[in-house]
Amino acid sequence: MKQKIILDCDPGHDDALAILLAAHHPTLELLAITTVAGNQSVLKTSQNALKVCSLANIRTVPVAMGMERPLLRPARFAPDIHGESGLDGPVLPEPTVSLASQHAVDLMIELLLQSDGDIILVATAPLTNIAYAMRREPAILPKIRGVSLMGGAIGLGNVTPSAEFNIWADPEAAAIVFGCGRPITMVPLEVTHQALATEAIFERLRSSQRMVATFAADLLTFFAESYRTAFGFVAPPVHDPCAVAAVIDPMLIATQLMSVCIETSGEWSSGRTVCDVYGKLQQPANAYVGHTLKVDRFWDLFIDTILTYA
Amino acid sequence: MKQKIILDCDPGHDDALAILLAAHHPTLELLAITTVAGNQSVLKTSQNALKVCSLANIRTVPVAMGMERPLLRPARFAPDIHGESGLDGPVLPEPTVSLASQHAVDLMIELLLQSDGDIILVATAPLTNIAYAMRREPAILPKIRGVSLMGGAIGLGNVTPSAEFNIWADPEAAAIVFGCGRPITMVPLEVTHQALATEAIFERLRSSQRMVATFAADLLTFFAESYRTAFGFVAPPVHDPCAVAAVIDPMLIATQLMSVCIETSGEWSSGRTVCDVYGKLQQPANAYVGHTLKVDRFWDLFIDTILTYA
Amino acid sequence: MKQKIILDCDPGHDDALAILLAAHHPTLELLAITTVAGNQSVLKTSQNALKVCSLANIRTVPVAMGMERPLLRPARFAPDIHGESGLDGPVLPEPTVSLASQHAVDLMIELLLQSDGDIILVATAPLTNIAYAMRREPAILPKIRGVSLMGGAIGLGNVTPSAEFNIWADPEAAAIVFGCGRPITMVPLEVTHQALATEAIFERLRSSQRMVATFAADLLTFFAESYRTAFGFVAPPVHDPCAVAAVIDPMLIATQLMSVCIETSGEWSSGRTVCDVYGKLQQPANAYVGHTLKVDRFWDLFIDTILTYA
Amino acid sequence: MKQKIILDCDPGHDDALAILLAAHHPTLELLAITTVAGNQSVLKTSQNALKVCSLANIRTVPVAMGMERPLLRPARFAPDIHGESGLDGPVLPEPTVSLASQHAVDLMIELLLQSDGDIILVATAPLTNIAYAMRREPAILPKIRGVSLMGGAIGLGNVTPSAEFNIWADPEAAAIVFGCGRPITMVPLEVTHQALATEAIFERLRSSQRMVATFAADLLTFFAESYRTAFGFVAPPVHDPCAVAAVIDPMLIATQLMSVCIETSGEWSSGRTVCDVYGKLQQPANAYVGHTLKVDRFWDLFIDTILTYA
Repeated sequence: MKQKIILDCDPGHDDALAILLAAHHPTLELLAITTVAGNQSVLKTSQNALKVCSLANIRTVPVAMGMERPLLRPARFAPDIHGESGLDGPVLPEPTVSLASQHAVDLMIELLLQSDGDIILVATAPLTNIAYAMRREPAILPKIRGVSLMGGAIGLGNVTPSAEFNIWADPEAAAIVFGCGRPITMVPLEVTHQALATEAIFERLRSSQRMVATFAADLLTFFAESYRTAFGFVAPPVHDPCAVAAVIDPMLIATQLMSVCIETSGEWSSGRTVCDVYGKLQQPANAYVGHTLKVDRFWDLFIDTILTYA
Repeated sequence: MKQKIILDCDPGHDDALAILLAAHHPTLELLAITTVAGNQSVLKTSQNALKVCSLANIRTVPVAMGMERPLLRPARFAPDIHGESGLDGPVLPEPTVSLASQHAVDLMIELLLQSDGDIILVATAPLTNIAYAMRREPAILPKIRGVSLMGGAIGLGNVTPSAEFNIWADPEAAAIVFGCGRPITMVPLEVTHQALATEAIFERLRSSQRMVATFAADLLTFFAESYRTAFGFVAPPVHDPCAVAAVIDPMLIATQLMSVCIETSGEWSSGRTVCDVYGKLQQPANAYVGHTLKVDRFWDLFIDTILTYA
Repeated sequence: MKQKIILDCDPGHDDALAILLAAHHPTLELLAITTVAGNQSVLKTSQNALKVCSLANIRTVPVAMGMERPLLRPARFAPDIHGESGLDGPVLPEPTVSLASQHAVDLMIELLLQSDGDIILVATAPLTNIAYAMRREPAILPKIRGVSLMGGAIGLGNVTPSAEFNIWADPEAAAIVFGCGRPITMVPLEVTHQALATEAIFERLRSSQRMVATFAADLLTFFAESYRTAFGFVAPPVHDPCAVAAVIDPMLIATQLMSVCIETSGEWSSGRTVCDVYGKLQQPANAYVGHTLKVDRFWDLFIDTILTYA
Repeated sequence: MKQKIILDCDPGHDDALAILLAAHHPTLELLAITTVAGNQSVLKTSQNALKVCSLANIRTVPVAMGMERPLLRPARFAPDIHGESGLDGPVLPEPTVSLASQHAVDLMIELLLQSDGDIILVATAPLTNIAYAMRREPAILPKIRGVSLMGGAIGLGNVTPSAEFNIWADPEAAAIVFGCGRPITMVPLEVTHQALATEAIFERLRSSQRMVATFAADLLTFFAESYRTAFGFVAPPVHDPCAVAAVIDPMLIATQLMSVCIETSGEWSSGRTVCDVYGKLQQPANAYVGHTLKVDRFWDLFIDTILTYA
């Protein structure tokens, strides 16, 4: 039996790779792709999701557009990392698949309410859609098997010293999700910074001479340049597929169960995932926080899946 | 020419070791020991400073008692780490030296105003005294050659996930000191957690069979147990001497100049030293933040100095 | 042409009176009653709305149940003022009308999108439903003719010294509504404390010997006791009908256009409507803030309408 | 027996009037005038205090200069109200009395420690000096008979909608003073806005043709223009003398004992005196908050005293 997932994303280069992984891995059943404002406006991230699906011939998964801005704060994008389109780099043809007519939040609620409680929400974006759905229809909560999310940091953030982008962009949404009472797997920067697309990875993708693998390599080429400029990384971290991979292979990322509190205020700390490693805060544990990635196994899993595409 | 320092501390086991290092290292001239509330009440930390000086025959350095509580917040101590006395473990005789008649803040101001601008303030405690002196007499600012302080963390704190004790106890004072415009050397937990008193270190101290070295080993024995219980450390970190050592040997701790902002608000983040490693905050650089300790060199420096005592 | 309104409420004694006024005033067309958590849980406030409509024979207006808790904060009710049922006092028969099948937020969005931009939202409750609708479907914004709301205070609040209940209960929702860019009429405590149901008012209602007027008087009897106990008022303020009356008769409440900022943080100030009477904050004006009620005219308008019921 | 007071001020037009009242009222013994940054820099307010004393021949009261900036925040002055000098308007000769050699904080501590606990601190400025003294020497606390301060507002502030200038300028200091445990009399804007210098008051001062009374009238003339421009007042409120008058005549200002919490955070509320009129916060009562001034009695008291000068 395949694990059902809904992928909530804001493509975004690494989101695009997460879509490819989620749609073709043999142990997953991707019920829907939902989009949200994050790396770029929701119009752009939705368009990017459609383009990726079109290119990769993902035609049976509904793509539903969601919230255009965070719950409380103004939308803030990441053009320095993902470019103006949100998916700069490879030139993509216009999409040949269309948006679902439903709003992402409504689709998410409908799928969950109809389910047997066997859906995992995989989030690789600000958590606005998921938080919104949780508040709008609390009856979905017992139906959520778990949430696997790329976001946060145990130590240093990437947008500010305190905060990683997905949490920083909508910390109030993150606070709702981390407080929802369902099992959370948090894949922080400490994990995704182990998933570095080195030259050897590029070579494995490019040498296949397959169209989608080449597209993946092209995405990573742009992403590599962003990370070199913004952070001085020698190889780009492939964040978002890690949250998908954590569902596919629960032993891939070593985690520690702990309390994670979301900081929504503070002069310098808004958006921080406060990870109580030493158990000092006397708060209930609410998240499995990843710390160590089995790097080779991750890349095998990822590349093997990408190579199933044309 | 010796480097003049004032040591502001709250003994405290590792403060006691810092006193020993500061008072006998041949390149330092210790002008005063000033005490403050922190690990315990200022009455207790002052008494502990006097006891350490008495035991080690440090008789010419004035010990002045300072602020009994943080600028704004109630005083919060650390009996779980340092015991009820602030210096639990070895039984110490009553002190045979007395407190200076001056308040710590007044002594600090007087010494600085009289100086040629050649004094470094070494702080191994909450920064209440120093902040208070800076506000009370702004004319001391250009007289401060620098501040070398044990405190803060780049990543995980020790009192909360966000904050290290010395900064957490009086974050407003820390904000004043980090904003003072003088050169700050911050020795964070990332550095002091490299200065672990292993069995080999204990052996080097105890095998000397000298009184003060034995006392140091006794202090570390109690401290080891605290750290085993509270954090699961196999060997205790010797925090405070690192801030003294950073003055003695500027190459001992590799640092990076960056902006450090002190978080004084936030639901979960108060007391955090927000270290802008990637330069995301567009704030002026204000601190040399240590990251890597030359461990062997540190222990040689420390033990060699301790062994100069009877 | 009648003014179309949607009444968003949390009955609540004075909400019940607002329903009665809104449903029968000849210049208003009440399109829907939407309910929200506030004075009591949304289940109770919805039930109360149905009971009031049943008693008053209001049968053609849909009653839709909305959000069960504020956007971010836990729900907090007001049993000290409205009792455990939210409408303690008069014994009401079970409702003979039913809830609409739609969620309040969906109904609100549908009515607004279908409209010619001629609907005023009247809110006498925490602003959760309205804020939620605004975020979920930003296309409703240009369709909202205005918002007339009972809430806030220029000076002293009633739940805390800083905050009035409706704003205090969901300040983030209030911040969204006050920032929506559409015309806001704010009817604060300063106005509603002028609408005191004195003995003379009771007499006018009771002497009619009509069923609904007697019900209104019974509601006010309970409310009078609450206000005597909680605040020492000699006569109870009839808050919520004032926000309806402000739509019926725009000259009834003298207002001043100013900037109103919603305080969502602060140790003691959360939920405050910061009314910039002197224009000190350099923020754009966003609300017509009421200050003076034409008291006699208000009571005539209110009682005349109540007396149109059986 | 005269009531001993120390007047802590930041002259400032109304501070100047407070000095005149405090120095010559027959029931007061003015032990010292201490100055602080507030309406202008502490250098200017000190100079202004000396000029006022010189002009009025107040030669035996020490004038000591205090803190140049608030505990935590940058200094912010009020040139829009008091002009660039802090005492614009009447041209004053250079002072013929000199500053005391002691710092204001030290003088305050010394006077209190030497006293029999019979000194009332009268504050008409940001509370930096007093808070600083309380932290530096907690032994003064039981020696303080009370604090009578001009500051705060029950309702609307004057610098922001939330805050009155003296509290807004150093809210952390205010929090320390309001939390000191000694009796506080708070004279808020609601009281001082009753002390309006009408034409009749001007006439009483000017008709005397006395030098100091004429100077007082000249001060008020400038102040009147400031208040007309900034707030649209038809007559200027004479704030600071009210706090002195409250000591002279305890029945002059009707007060209510309540809890007053100082808001030091919040996006829009920093510096607010949160006055718990209805007792909603469950905090201990800490201040007698004035609400009603016996206006005629105040002016008689004030003018009678001014007319005792040459």
